[in-house]
Amino acid sequence: MIQALGASQGIAIGKAFVLPHWEWELPDQKIDVADLAKEFDRLYEGIRRSKTEINQMRTELDEVVGSEEASIFDAHLAILEDPVFMYEIQGIIQRQYKVAEVAVKEAIDHFVTMFDLLDDEYMKERALDIKDVGNRLLKHLLGAPDISLPEDTQPFVLVVRELSPSQLVHLKPDLVLGIVTMVGSPTSHSAIMARAFGIPMVMGLEGKLEQIIGTGDLLIIDGGTGVLQVDPSSETVARYTDLRRRQISQREQLLSIAELPAVTKDGVSLTLAANISSLKELEAALSNGAQGVGLFRTEFLYMDRNQFPSEQEQFEVYRAVVEKIKGETLIIRTLDIGGDKQLDYYELPEEENPFLGFRAIRFSLDRKDLFKTQLRAILRASHFGDVQIMYPLIASVDEVREANTVLAEAERELTEEGIPHQANIKVGIMIEVPAAVAIADMLAEEVSFFSIGTNDLIQFTLAVDRMNEQISHLYEPYHPAILRMLRTVANAAHKNGIPVNICGEIAGDVNALPIWLGLGIEELSLSAQAILPVKESMLRTKASESRQLLEEMFRCKTAAEVRALASQFHMEAAMALGNIKPLI
Amino acid sequence: MIQALGASQGIAIGKAFVLPHWEWELPDQKIDVADLAKEFDRLYEGIRRSKTEINQMRTELDEVVGSEEASIFDAHLAILEDPVFMYEIQGIIQRQYKVAEVAVKEAIDHFVTMFDLLDDEYMKERALDIKDVGNRLLKHLLGAPDISLPEDTQPFVLVVRELSPSQLVHLKPDLVLGIVTMVGSPTSHSAIMARAFGIPMVMGLEGKLEQIIGTGDLLIIDGGTGVLQVDPSSETVARYTDLRRRQISQREQLLSIAELPAVTKDGVSLTLAANISSLKELEAALSNGAQGVGLFRTEFLYMDRNQFPSEQEQFEVYRAVVEKIKGETLIIRTLDIGGDKQLDYYELPEEENPFLGFRAIRFSLDRKDLFKTQLRAILRASHFGDVQIMYPLIASVDEVREANTVLAEAERELTEEGIPHQANIKVGIMIEVPAAVAIADMLAEEVSFFSIGTNDLIQFTLAVDRMNEQISHLYEPYHPAILRMLRTVANAAHKNGIPVNICGEIAGDVNALPIWLGLGIEELSLSAQAILPVKESMLRTKASESRQLLEEMFRCKTAAEVRALASQFHMEAAMALGNIKPLI
Repeated sequence: MIQALGASQGIAIGKAFVLPHWEWELPDQKIDVADLAKEFDRLYEGIRRSKTEINQMRTELDEVVGSEEASIFDAHLAILEDPVFMYEIQGIIQRQYKVAEVAVKEAIDHFVTMFDLLDDEYMKERALDIKDVGNRLLKHLLGAPDISLPEDTQPFVLVVRELSPSQLVHLKPDLVLGIVTMVGSPTSHSAIMARAFGIPMVMGLEGKLEQIIGTGDLLIIDGGTGVLQVDPSSETVARYTDLRRRQISQREQLLSIAELPAVTKDGVSLTLAANISSLKELEAALSNGAQGVGLFRTEFLYMDRNQFPSEQEQFEVYRAVVEKIKGETLIIRTLDIGGDKQLDYYELPEEENPFLGFRAIRFSLDRKDLFKTQLRAILRASHFGDVQIMYPLIASVDEVREANTVLAEAERELTEEGIPHQANIKVGIMIEVPAAVAIADMLAEEVSFFSIGTNDLIQFTLAVDRMNEQISHLYEPYHPAILRMLRTVANAAHKNGIPVNICGEIAGDVNALPIWLGLGIEELSLSAQAILPVKESMLRTKASESRQLLEEMFRCKTAAEVRALASQFHMEAAMALGNIKPLI
Repeated sequence: MIQALGASQGIAIGKAFVLPHWEWELPDQKIDVADLAKEFDRLYEGIRRSKTEINQMRTELDEVVGSEEASIFDAHLAILEDPVFMYEIQGIIQRQYKVAEVAVKEAIDHFVTMFDLLDDEYMKERALDIKDVGNRLLKHLLGAPDISLPEDTQPFVLVVRELSPSQLVHLKPDLVLGIVTMVGSPTSHSAIMARAFGIPMVMGLEGKLEQIIGTGDLLIIDGGTGVLQVDPSSETVARYTDLRRRQISQREQLLSIAELPAVTKDGVSLTLAANISSLKELEAALSNGAQGVGLFRTEFLYMDRNQFPSEQEQFEVYRAVVEKIKGETLIIRTLDIGGDKQLDYYELPEEENPFLGFRAIRFSLDRKDLFKTQLRAILRASHFGDVQIMYPLIASVDEVREANTVLAEAERELTEEGIPHQANIKVGIMIEVPAAVAIADMLAEEVSFFSIGTNDLIQFTLAVDRMNEQISHLYEPYHPAILRMLRTVANAAHKNGIPVNICGEIAGDVNALPIWLGLGIEELSLSAQAILPVKESMLRTKASESRQLLEEMFRCKTAAEVRALASQFHMEAAMALGNIKPLI
């Protein structure tokens, strides 16, 4: 048994297929001065073909798993347009008279060495992207075929040193039961895509691949726990087969409650809405019983393209979403760009601390022209259903007022132009900056609802970047300070008669449910997969007991004590009901 | 009149001296394969000499302005040891048979172009460092003399396209009245050094240098406002001469109150302690009337060197400081490394958001061996005066308890070894993480004092990196949320009978004084230059009126309203006293 990193949930049991390396034979002749221009032409042709191929993969992927995942390939296109990378390749051809293949290979090696030296997870990921793009370019320059998987075989568990997103996109899900990689982290592009495809994956094995696994070895991988078993005993196989069966049956069981209302045992209801970035995600959410959309992340409309989307384009997407949810509420968050979300066609400044930087509403208030375009598109869509607007990263009363001034202008324009839209559209804000918590009472007087973005709020409140592996253990949603801040926000909102939505990842943690019930939160906004587990939990929980539990939590001085109370409560409710057994 | 950026306070009036560029004539011969080894020897010899020279400058600077500024040159030494930079130079020599000078020049150009492309302030500063180091290396390879300033001349205002720290360190302060640069930002190394030397400086002029200023032009620069006057009228000269005289006389007037106690008109006292990083800074603080040290930043003991300081080395410094302050309190903050403070000899991980990263107490609790060494040194120094310990970046009760466990172990060891130290040393914490504010009442039960680090607290609370130019206007100490958080901390502390210290930059803002008096804060910890202006303000302020003002501030919904109240209050107090006129 080997403990690796779990990168994509689920259990796979099958024979290993170990994929060989991508290796190239490079010509070693020099080029003649007279042929320099021809060599550049070959280079450009190779780049053109690589781009076409990448664009094609992107389109395919977009159809299969959605635009967020497909945007991975934008990073690859950006490399092929990167002046520093191209300058390096051209320099080697021009000054050292080497053929394009060799120049590309040397440039890749140069940058990969440099990025690896930096000893930084993010840069290592970028190095992997450069390798991937470079290999594609080499393939075209050399006229070589793609490395392919065996087609006429039993389904297998794919084992590979490292897997690039472009390799992953060509895998056939019915052939690949699971994936094991030596290199990589759960935040890598490949891991994101494995999750999107629903393929179990573990990664980050130590040691030499050949010494661990050979083609034909029987493997079990558990993408939830990160466990890898090589040549397991028949008892282990039986145990995991059973576990896998139970996981699948539990998923089916959950689907059976999709149509039930989300109400506690003592009759308290809580709206379970969806977090979405695209129409495709909305479909998954609706089939899981989502009641409307609590958070439409509009930045993905801006990210997967070459220029800012027009008012008409945005309007059409917003309208399609609101028409699809038939009478339920659609909350559209205005552009939340910056931080870790960048645009290819608009250069945001490089920042030392992007999370504390030029982002979200700060960007919108700086580019009021773009902001107004988005607000006009949202207002127009509001004619077709219950649409509400939400501003992200609000830290002051001034920002709300400034944004509302732009909104008023957009509305006045539409009225003058005779374009139909909802009058007095509801405006809410994300509460995700600690300052907004401290002045929640003042903000509650300015808006129609709050939505607590717990991910950012926890990061800022604890001063912990949760993507930073060195300190990720300090990212603690159950920290007593967080509980108190949630209470401050809920009290301020309810005193002013406005509802509160929770839209961070913790909203999908079933253990946290009594917190929301205890605080009297009105709505949770969840990813499609989280809706049914939370509803299942609601059905067997009492709001009155949740309130008592929360009081106990407020007496705790450490997160460990709060966590213990939460998980004990959850376990007891599950046992009492008896019909759903814990998996472990 | 030209509006530039003020980089170092003060007014200078004098003739311009325009410094020519550093330019080199490079040999264009190729080297023979047989001479490759010789060429590498020349390169290494040049590097060796450059290092010796940089070390020498660092030592000189350390004596003149202190170790914090001197550590600038550590960045230069790091470049000469940087594998990527060296690999580039060696590659050009080895593969292209170019002489070392040309290889160095091309490598500089390569990295400077690359860093400039990134369009990021920080990387541009690094590009300037690389240029500076490269030029020094070229100078040694070519055997060229230093560019020098005229010696037998009247004092002048130095005008230069860009000024490297190593050029600045050789300026004679009695010859250079002020400095004007085209390129640069107030956070650059040169600006930091100009402030340390007390030389007025403006920077960031637009346009072509030659078209703006010629050697011999009469210049006025005001480093406070960033104003530059070229060939001003005699009235302007008279006005600035007067302004300069008044600035100087006000400074002298302030010195006359250094020995007075810091007490308000209605008899409320407030300890005005010093922020220091070295013994040298302590001297300046004591001559400005500092009452003890409220914040000894120990990280600079760790930064200006090649390995972690031993217990004995630390002990000697701490002991020297506590003996020098004769009976007053010395608060030693344990190592606050990480974020923007790095060590040359210990690689911290590269981080996407270093301010939200592996820093301060998080580092100490990860490296308990180093932490215990520091605690032992502090405990030993506590035998020689009133020494207290302060943990930085505390976000939870757990962290305090875990740190105290290490402290208890250190104390037990010293007792067993028979080494004298204070029993039950007082332990306090920095309140600079929003979570610590939210649980201030719980933390107050665990420690003997609070010190509010407003710089970080404001950054986290508002989610604004104040070094980020694009959003620095959002860094707002007078934000209503900040006021409330200060009140929460003060109330929690006072309810538990422990004192509160304020140690961020806002403590030195005279307009903020009524906030501290209104909240009943016990101590401000200030840079040497801020002590007397704050004390002068105290002498003419009433604590009772401050409390009333603070009540009014708490009714404000925007920072602008709070600011207006604060500055009006300050102005009125100044006018009422009548003996100190505002400068503008």
